[in-house]
Amino acid sequence: MVRRIYIREFGLTLGVSGEQFVVRRRKEVVAKIPAVDVHVIEIMTDRASLTTAALRLAARHGVWIVIADYLGRPQAFLEPITRRAGIIIRRRQYDMADTTSGLELAKRLALGKMVNQRNILRRLAARRKGKEIYEILLDLYLAASEEVKALVGSTPGSREFIMNFEARVARLYWEAWSAILENFPGRRKRYENPEDPINMALNLGYSLLEADCYIAISSTNLDPYAGFLHVDNPRRPALVMDFMEQFRQPIVDSIVLTLAERGMLEVGEGRLSKNSVNSIIKSYADRLRQTVSHRGRRAPLEAHILYQARHLEDRIRIGSPIYTPFTVR
Amino acid sequence: MVRRIYIREFGLTLGVSGEQFVVRRRKEVVAKIPAVDVHVIEIMTDRASLTTAALRLAARHGVWIVIADYLGRPQAFLEPITRRAGIIIRRRQYDMADTTSGLELAKRLALGKMVNQRNILRRLAARRKGKEIYEILLDLYLAASEEVKALVGSTPGSREFIMNFEARVARLYWEAWSAILENFPGRRKRYENPEDPINMALNLGYSLLEADCYIAISSTNLDPYAGFLHVDNPRRPALVMDFMEQFRQPIVDSIVLTLAERGMLEVGEGRLSKNSVNSIIKSYADRLRQTVSHRGRRAPLEAHILYQARHLEDRIRIGSPIYTPFTVR
Repeated sequence: MVRRIYIREFGLTLGVSGEQFVVRRRKEVVAKIPAVDVHVIEIMTDRASLTTAALRLAARHGVWIVIADYLGRPQAFLEPITRRAGIIIRRRQYDMADTTSGLELAKRLALGKMVNQRNILRRLAARRKGKEIYEILLDLYLAASEEVKALVGSTPGSREFIMNFEARVARLYWEAWSAILENFPGRRKRYENPEDPINMALNLGYSLLEADCYIAISSTNLDPYAGFLHVDNPRRPALVMDFMEQFRQPIVDSIVLTLAERGMLEVGEGRLSKNSVNSIIKSYADRLRQTVSHRGRRAPLEAHILYQARHLEDRIRIGSPIYTPFTVR
Repeated sequence: MVRRIYIREFGLTLGVSGEQFVVRRRKEVVAKIPAVDVHVIEIMTDRASLTTAALRLAARHGVWIVIADYLGRPQAFLEPITRRAGIIIRRRQYDMADTTSGLELAKRLALGKMVNQRNILRRLAARRKGKEIYEILLDLYLAASEEVKALVGSTPGSREFIMNFEARVARLYWEAWSAILENFPGRRKRYENPEDPINMALNLGYSLLEADCYIAISSTNLDPYAGFLHVDNPRRPALVMDFMEQFRQPIVDSIVLTLAERGMLEVGEGRLSKNSVNSIIKSYADRLRQTVSHRGRRAPLEAHILYQARHLEDRIRIGSPIYTPFTVR
């Protein structure tokens, strides 16, 4: 079982006993986890501590340590020195970008998200059959379906060509959120400084997901900064952004939608309440542990993130764009 | 002033106060260092601790945290997510390797070490004029000079061609160490499990240097794993090995030679004594702070390591092999 440790509580200490991580609150042991079972330790507070033995145990077992800022955005990673030694694959990656083959791969990465959005639109409509809103949602679903079909049948000549399809489906998708959720003012990204709990929750969820996608890509020999769909950007790892698209809806949007519908997201003093943050992180971690089937394999979602990164590496190794993004019905 | 913090003492705690790192022994504050002045924090013990605030302060200021094993070998690094975003330079690096230009660069990287070794041979001989050993050292120096001259005048057709020159000069160089030091059984690398203090000290010193060279290369957009001289290797970052050659003698060998001549290196129970380790680490850190002139710039040696990495990146950016390695007379 792959395990994640989130250190976000005042006064916790992460130490070591033999080959186990030990979490203590004051002197009391609250958890003991064998290092081989731990995949990620994510630091989300200023007010805890780690022993150097814990850092070394993590380094020895290839456990990722993520340092996140107060909004959950990953700032730094503890990277074992043996990572990314296979440089041949990175050469291929660079050579492939913006070729016909590279654009076909970009298209498939974008389609991952678009198909997931279309499928959510269908589900949202289906659940509201007979209600007034049904027609609106059905129209949005049908319009998104058309866009998906058109992109599937096309041969993109540029990244922008794909991005335009992606933007149109996103517009339809978020319009549905506005239609069904009372307090959703439309999608606002982090830099747009949203003040509503739903956008804040989405942004926190995407930050958590970004850390996990960065880790998955960095567990391969791919270069996180060389994208196929997203343009290279000094502040964001473009390939991680490409890779993340397929997981946004099945992981983050689905939990935020559930929490929003249950009224579990609140803002106080311009930020998400502590309870809301706790709910989001707990739902996120629970969601990653859920077993799902994809490409003939039943496994927890967090394992699929790693498999999909490996799958991407395999495709790039042989120069093939035939990547099957992670989608749910 | 660039600063390094080595955490290697039982019971130390690294915390934060404002934008400063604070080192405590029990409750007592032993050092306060503004984060902007810190370049590296190297963890060399199991028995200290860090607050998560210290990890986050390091991430925010781009301070490197190195996790070393008990022999000082770097195992993992805390890497800010914004590193290595410039992928163009890595494309150039891959394309350049093993071309005429790439081999010329490899030659210059190797010459850095060979010239430094030759210069030490000259110094060793000069200091022993009139003694019996003088003739031996002079011969070694002259033979090394011939090899250097021959490589300078050649156009290498392969990495092996350069490596052969490098191996011959190394043999002459270590022969001189055997001639002047009583208890030096010839050079033994780590994997050869040396049992004498001088080889152990050299290996510890090279591990410390490897961490600093890894950091310098990783502070550029170069790929640490794609070498010009050293063959790509999944266990060692080949470009870091290339880059490190020029610093081995001026930094590590010079301090080990001094410590050996003063009788300050001892082995107990199959490992270096605690005092010896302390002396090596202290000498290493002191040496890095010494001001030296190179390429028209007077600066501490540790700054030259960073400058030389930047210089290498600049050369590769324009596809030029005209790299001036760090050498001392």
